[in-house]
Amino acid sequence: MQELIDRFNAGETRALARLISLLENESDEHELILKELFPRTGQAYVIGFTGSPGAGKSSLVDQVVKELRKKGNTVGIIAVDPTSPFTGGALLGDRIRMQQHALDKGVFIRSMGTRGSLGGLSKTTKDVVKAMDAFGFDWIIIETVGVGQAELDIMHVADSTVVVLTPGAGDAIQTIKAGIMEIADVFAINKSDLPGADKIATEVEIMLDQQRAGITWRPPVKLCSSLTGTGIAELVQAIEKHRQNQLHGTNNSLELKRQERRRSETLDIVNYKWQQRVLQQLHLPGRVNELLDKVAHKEMDHYTAAYAILEYMAANQVVTNTDK
Amino acid sequence: MQELIDRFNAGETRALARLISLLENESDEHELILKELFPRTGQAYVIGFTGSPGAGKSSLVDQVVKELRKKGNTVGIIAVDPTSPFTGGALLGDRIRMQQHALDKGVFIRSMGTRGSLGGLSKTTKDVVKAMDAFGFDWIIIETVGVGQAELDIMHVADSTVVVLTPGAGDAIQTIKAGIMEIADVFAINKSDLPGADKIATEVEIMLDQQRAGITWRPPVKLCSSLTGTGIAELVQAIEKHRQNQLHGTNNSLELKRQERRRSETLDIVNYKWQQRVLQQLHLPGRVNELLDKVAHKEMDHYTAAYAILEYMAANQVVTNTDK
Repeated sequence: MQELIDRFNAGETRALARLISLLENESDEHELILKELFPRTGQAYVIGFTGSPGAGKSSLVDQVVKELRKKGNTVGIIAVDPTSPFTGGALLGDRIRMQQHALDKGVFIRSMGTRGSLGGLSKTTKDVVKAMDAFGFDWIIIETVGVGQAELDIMHVADSTVVVLTPGAGDAIQTIKAGIMEIADVFAINKSDLPGADKIATEVEIMLDQQRAGITWRPPVKLCSSLTGTGIAELVQAIEKHRQNQLHGTNNSLELKRQERRRSETLDIVNYKWQQRVLQQLHLPGRVNELLDKVAHKEMDHYTAAYAILEYMAANQVVTNTDK
Repeated sequence: MQELIDRFNAGETRALARLISLLENESDEHELILKELFPRTGQAYVIGFTGSPGAGKSSLVDQVVKELRKKGNTVGIIAVDPTSPFTGGALLGDRIRMQQHALDKGVFIRSMGTRGSLGGLSKTTKDVVKAMDAFGFDWIIIETVGVGQAELDIMHVADSTVVVLTPGAGDAIQTIKAGIMEIADVFAINKSDLPGADKIATEVEIMLDQQRAGITWRPPVKLCSSLTGTGIAELVQAIEKHRQNQLHGTNNSLELKRQERRRSETLDIVNYKWQQRVLQQLHLPGRVNELLDKVAHKEMDHYTAAYAILEYMAANQVVTNTDK
């Protein structure tokens, strides 16, 4: 393991790929890896791209990457598909993309599906972000296929979230209804060459007008085309502006957001570990199953048993503290 | 409190109503009440009615209640609306229904919305079922307005679940898609006087044909009309048959189901209490916040802090064990 981490620290891409696989599979070394990476995290800026399927997010991300590369920035990309069981870059579209960037050491792409995400896709995504961050990428882009709850959860890890809309199919209104309005920091109206693009931009602006007063950031609405490259530079500028706004606002809201995220991630681990420990007890003969059986057979009420289980779990903390 | 429970035990309906309110509001006496009720529970048979809005569930339930009353059985009804903030029988429809049964001591109706359901609507429904069960009703009917996830969760408490479908509006297929197929023990095709009722019944039968082999119960599909009363007796018979099937099958699956439910309810309480205890710590200065702050400021990694929090929580079990 130490050898792998040394290679990772030396900037070897294959070591990064290997570490990500270990994180995805919740291997025994999972926690050790994250502990090792922790001090090196917190440098990358994380952008999320979300929007309805067919909005052209992948090509848009490719254009954004090209723009960032022009400036000499390195980029890690995480393509998340909560509907796919596949993981590890097996998706056809990503293979094509990988070829495009194959000779560019400044770009790293990783696809993720639900398989191998034992702790949930959102948790695994956070872990992969940490790995890419520690590896030293300047930017990390998370791209999701749709706008379901899974995608919204994943977007919590982004420092800036770009919501991609396209003309036609009542796309805009539907997407906005899905509760995505609140998480958008920038709106990208892709396929701006198609008729109706202006109309959607206007609709979004009107919706933004109706927002409550006192907001510190009004999401800019940017027309762009992943096909022609029109408006991509402006889109990247808008993201950069949002970043600066968070860094140099009245308070450093980016740092506050990240601190809050670290707190809640820790609590998630606490609860996850706790539940794992309880589940472990269910697979063993012993006090916990004994108490549950009593309730099952109506020899004890739920609450008396629940408190006894809590007490037992606490008393046996020392033993279970060796769990992974 | 003891006086209230005495009145409840003496069969006073107003004491039941009061106890239910206390349960809904997660009052301090919440646990005490459930402990007191526990030995008297497990007698009633619980039926759930679910289906798309507009399927005529309320009128159907009224007809079923009439049928059960004819046989001299007492019935408690819980009308759950996860979309409504109101609770406590304030819904117009239920007022009308209550008047209809106002002089009948053998029927008790309670409406529930999300307000006052601090532990979640599904948990509160379970608690109200326990109160009605302990009060001595022969049957308890839970009726929901729709077929969302909240409704599906609520249906877990039912011994038999009736899925109500109606002709028209592509109702059947949509409902079935919502993942409700798995929880149906009986299908009621309501409004059987409307054209298309037979067609839906056939569609459902075809779907049931495609189910995997080896099932021990094939849900019967019953045409009925809550307007004319046609088929209601047969619907009640089908429910009764499902009950008997569970009681006298190769194994007593009803009892096994209830035992499993008591186990999982206890674990839910264990996890709920645990999370409450952690949340309490967040509102206090002290070790937990200290550790979280360290992670927030990158002075400690997530896992080291998480284990320290788990250890702290265990060590301070005695103090927090006094929580309500």
